[in-house]
Amino acid sequence: MTTVTRQRRTAPAALIQDLKLLLGERLSTAAAVREQHGRDESAFDVPAPDAVVFCETAEEVTRVVTCAAAHRVPVIAFGAGSSLEGHVLATEGGITLDLARMNRILKISQEDMTATVQAGVTREELNRALRAMGLFFPIDPGANATLGGMAATRASGTNAVRYGTMRENVLGLTAVLPDGRVLRTGTRARKSSAGYDLTRLFVGSEGTLGIVTELTVRLYPLPEAVSAAICHMPSVDAAVRTTIQIVQMGIPIARCELLDERAVRAVNKHERMQLREQPMLLMEFHGSDTGVREQAELVQQIAQENGGQDFEWADTPEERTRLWTARHHAYFAGLQTRPGCRCIVTDVCVPISRLADAIGEAIADVEASGVPYYVVGHVGDGNFHMCYLIDGADARERAVVERLATQLAQRAITLEGTCTGEHGIGLHKQDLLIEEAGATGVSLMQAIKAALDPSNIMNPGKIFQLAP
Amino acid sequence: MTTVTRQRRTAPAALIQDLKLLLGERLSTAAAVREQHGRDESAFDVPAPDAVVFCETAEEVTRVVTCAAAHRVPVIAFGAGSSLEGHVLATEGGITLDLARMNRILKISQEDMTATVQAGVTREELNRALRAMGLFFPIDPGANATLGGMAATRASGTNAVRYGTMRENVLGLTAVLPDGRVLRTGTRARKSSAGYDLTRLFVGSEGTLGIVTELTVRLYPLPEAVSAAICHMPSVDAAVRTTIQIVQMGIPIARCELLDERAVRAVNKHERMQLREQPMLLMEFHGSDTGVREQAELVQQIAQENGGQDFEWADTPEERTRLWTARHHAYFAGLQTRPGCRCIVTDVCVPISRLADAIGEAIADVEASGVPYYVVGHVGDGNFHMCYLIDGADARERAVVERLATQLAQRAITLEGTCTGEHGIGLHKQDLLIEEAGATGVSLMQAIKAALDPSNIMNPGKIFQLAP
Repeated sequence: MTTVTRQRRTAPAALIQDLKLLLGERLSTAAAVREQHGRDESAFDVPAPDAVVFCETAEEVTRVVTCAAAHRVPVIAFGAGSSLEGHVLATEGGITLDLARMNRILKISQEDMTATVQAGVTREELNRALRAMGLFFPIDPGANATLGGMAATRASGTNAVRYGTMRENVLGLTAVLPDGRVLRTGTRARKSSAGYDLTRLFVGSEGTLGIVTELTVRLYPLPEAVSAAICHMPSVDAAVRTTIQIVQMGIPIARCELLDERAVRAVNKHERMQLREQPMLLMEFHGSDTGVREQAELVQQIAQENGGQDFEWADTPEERTRLWTARHHAYFAGLQTRPGCRCIVTDVCVPISRLADAIGEAIADVEASGVPYYVVGHVGDGNFHMCYLIDGADARERAVVERLATQLAQRAITLEGTCTGEHGIGLHKQDLLIEEAGATGVSLMQAIKAALDPSNIMNPGKIFQLAP
Repeated sequence: MTTVTRQRRTAPAALIQDLKLLLGERLSTAAAVREQHGRDESAFDVPAPDAVVFCETAEEVTRVVTCAAAHRVPVIAFGAGSSLEGHVLATEGGITLDLARMNRILKISQEDMTATVQAGVTREELNRALRAMGLFFPIDPGANATLGGMAATRASGTNAVRYGTMRENVLGLTAVLPDGRVLRTGTRARKSSAGYDLTRLFVGSEGTLGIVTELTVRLYPLPEAVSAAICHMPSVDAAVRTTIQIVQMGIPIARCELLDERAVRAVNKHERMQLREQPMLLMEFHGSDTGVREQAELVQQIAQENGGQDFEWADTPEERTRLWTARHHAYFAGLQTRPGCRCIVTDVCVPISRLADAIGEAIADVEASGVPYYVVGHVGDGNFHMCYLIDGADARERAVVERLATQLAQRAITLEGTCTGEHGIGLHKQDLLIEEAGATGVSLMQAIKAALDPSNIMNPGKIFQLAP
């Protein structure tokens, strides 16, 4: 939550000059632009880059990287700025490379259900282009993130329980390497055994190995039938038990989201809705008409056995959009419950059998602390977020929440889970990564980084520290 | 197809002595044992290792690797010996480490649907242990391979169209690194964004980065209903068109296998079956009773539109086992159609829209050559095998088939697919890997290998060559 600044490697005037020649007005050293690009949605203070460049082609990315490499100056990829763990902060200075203008959809194959896009395309842009074709791209982290950014953090979100994460859905990618070479990984085939899985190495590498400029992703047919329902539950525990049973029965539920009563209350206020203010499961079913009905009946039965109310259905696209928008606005709704607060969003994922324990203990801890909070989660995956609403100026609260978040992550690791289900390591969870992956695991990551980026110019200081 | 031998790094007497002290009778230098371990199901001649060790514990693996590393002698992991591209051949000499005795199932979590097993557990052993729990492990490459070997080659097989490959289904693993350190990757959570994806790096690394000693894999609930059907098609092309339409409609078919009329004829003879001798789709549907019925009806309709016959159903487990056994015995059935022949099994995977082209051209080529062949394929994934039946002693036939196989793989790459869907690179496809992944891609793989295994002792000379 505090500023993390390391040894700066400031871009020299000669580099700025070279980039200016290359990009003209698309290089900015204005304070406002730099600050905007030194910030994400985390609670870190802003170390701004020395300059921001707005690339429009892969060739420009290559030129920028080559120039920066010649000066051993850091290069930080920037998409929508919606990451949460300080991934885009320029802690060592350098050039931020904004990819938002690289937003062309290069190819959609309806027959193969694949799309090849530039890294700056957002998930909403892609889905708009797909709608008329009867296809969709399922990964939905909430924010309208860019696909490049989503690959970088191995994002997932509400649909992952059925469709997987970026790990499963990126078929291949193009990246500019630290030495300016262009790497192309993967193919458009569904599977391959051709050598090391470089695609999966880059997915989740948080910009530390190269700049992803293009991705090919899997698409899915829009289901014949979609049905969303909310079910009010007597307790968070009952909601979690319901989820566990749904997953264990192998019901192919498409989305299974938990909102605790605090999140529901905030959403009601923010979205002017009248949801019953108790823990709620928000679910979506995809399939054929009969398949959807069958899934929903089974789930309703399970929910009722755990004390759930009848389903309230949202069958029209408008109603569904309203519900999911409400879910995605939970963050902003939460912020409004404590004017002027900052929201510290945690992110752990545990084996489904440990989910009730993990959430229960996290709630007990935060209740004891007195800090306002709410809970949301992609519980079908065992993934949830404790969201702490703190006074950012109150050092004591910041310290309390830091302790709570660390306890939560450590408990997840103890429960054979992970300290981050979908947000990534960034700046914030580097010590936790060592606890989770072990010194040996992190040393392998460092060895790979050193082999591929010996000058450590690609988003340095993220995921782990290298010896200077 | 010829012997590939490189600079040998023969195990010195001192190393053999050390290993003998450690393992006693579980070290063998007998020619028969060494030869058996210098062979897989490929058509390469046998370069045998200098010794074979049979480890029973992870600690023994660590000791063996440490001893070998001290002498810079190669270590080659060996599971069931069912790989097809020369993965286990001791082309540089060294010690083969047989993991078959490490066959303990360490933990099954019914609640989380995960299993943690030693690397020598075979998929059939695991499924036997799971049956009474109502769970199964879906990856089925045909051979009763070990899970360690399946991870090493990123195996898949008949169920991958629905359940994914080893890439999607290994949650984490334990490996002994070249320097003897023990690496643990992943967790039992479904997803994670914690740093580089070391699990996916080891899956498909063909034993070149370390010795996998344990794996945690995902399990699935046994479906409420399972139904298998065969459908006779007027041509391979019609069968492929049917498959493409099934996939594009998003029907969650669990298995979708093609056998051409030659494969059917061979299977009839070998298994004493009376299948109609024309191209055939062998399919399986998993789901609820109504779900399975619905899927099957849709598929039947699609097949009929493409000239397919009515389905012949196999609803009892016994009938299904008989059909799938027949499918898995296609290889041996094929061998018997030309007494004394060797079967050269190729393995390419293309985007589904290119499948008809890829198979059609491959058939045209082999027909022109006059070499006997048959075709089988996991066509739901765009993955198929041209199986050439050659006289191994006939240099001309070997050369012809080598050319056919290379053409096939190059065509797959041109069609935006891969030169190997599931068998791996091994010794045989290293030039093709360069065509597919590019010099840059392969150089990254080599850089990773050099960083993690600087003495190049882990299954050296597989996937790619390193400068000596």
